[in-house]
Amino acid sequence: MRDDTIKRILKFSEDRDWDQFHSPANLAKSISIEANELLECFQWSDENYDINEVKEELADVMVYCVDMLDKLGLDADEIINAKMDKNEAKSPVEKARGSAKKDDKL
Amino acid sequence: MRDDTIKRILKFSEDRDWDQFHSPANLAKSISIEANELLECFQWSDENYDINEVKEELADVMVYCVDMLDKLGLDADEIINAKMDKNEAKSPVEKARGSAKKDDKL
Amino acid sequence: MRDDTIKRILKFSEDRDWDQFHSPANLAKSISIEANELLECFQWSDENYDINEVKEELADVMVYCVDMLDKLGLDADEIINAKMDKNEAKSPVEKARGSAKKDDKL
Amino acid sequence: MRDDTIKRILKFSEDRDWDQFHSPANLAKSISIEANELLECFQWSDENYDINEVKEELADVMVYCVDMLDKLGLDADEIINAKMDKNEAKSPVEKARGSAKKDDKL
Repeated sequence: MRDDTIKRILKFSEDRDWDQFHSPANLAKSISIEANELLECFQWSDENYDINEVKEELADVMVYCVDMLDKLGLDADEIINAKMDKNEAKSPVEKARGSAKKDDKL
Repeated sequence: MRDDTIKRILKFSEDRDWDQFHSPANLAKSISIEANELLECFQWSDENYDINEVKEELADVMVYCVDMLDKLGLDADEIINAKMDKNEAKSPVEKARGSAKKDDKL
Repeated sequence: MRDDTIKRILKFSEDRDWDQFHSPANLAKSISIEANELLECFQWSDENYDINEVKEELADVMVYCVDMLDKLGLDADEIINAKMDKNEAKSPVEKARGSAKKDDKL
Repeated sequence: MRDDTIKRILKFSEDRDWDQFHSPANLAKSISIEANELLECFQWSDENYDINEVKEELADVMVYCVDMLDKLGLDADEIINAKMDKNEAKSPVEKARGSAKKDDKL
């Protein structure tokens, strides 16, 4: 994600004085709410989804993730790489390869 | 998010041959599931959260967002900017400023 | 659901003095969190689920629904029948029958 | 919940031939989606919620729970009591009483 995209997201809330609503807990609720609007695109069929709705709802999820990173002073690359370190240790390639159970069941 | 972070996320699934599980519908479920593990950090209190758990769960949400962007051949900046165009049109600053109802109720 | 089941659910929280945590907002979060533990049973496959896990997670969702009904002084039959009145009006049989789009898209 | 309420819920889907959409996985998605419409009532405030919206969304969650019980041939009282057995064993009153961490952290 480019810096100007992140700045646009943050300026949007600032301009509207909405930072006051963006407690970490409210942002966590918002990420879940938007994630479920995304899930709704696939409610009755895995195949017949509207790609334009998917784009909008996925964008909404990411917008609130950016708001939360900003609110908590976190760096996306840093927290993702720290988590990937854990994921790689937990699911070594030789054990995990192609397992239908994926990481949580290894 | 840096390109090398995105590449690491995608390589993780490739190396494990997990792309076969990453249908758009399964990724939408996964984003919701991880969003709710994030929400669980705030289940009984808005204030007393464990920042390390928050970092990990927020990272998980973003990892699956990256997987979904890749799966659908989408560009994060493009879909977010398209959505911000809509958000800005829907919630003009003069009407939205400080409104406790935020965008969906204006 | 039988009355003795409902009473057992409510007594469980009372005995532990947990009613203090059961604000409507916290219960709404809890219902979503448990709903996603249920969803996790179907994360990578629609077919290969563990019925025992499904039973436990579905029970958890319903337990928090009972807590919320109690907290808000609501009657399950009353609110469900009021909603079914709306659903039936919104999706008349002749229009809705077998539609792959179900009610929200008619 | 009364038997006639349950029958009304099941007849609603039958009359519309919607049982074909009610796979366990789709119902799990639906419960999560409705749970998040309920959560949306509390998105920006824990206190200022619209009780009529809460009633409708909570009803929707329960309607899909009834559909899932029926689909899987489960009995609500049976699975809830089995889960309460576990909860009571996991969180004995003397240890759990008033703990802000509730059951999962004891």
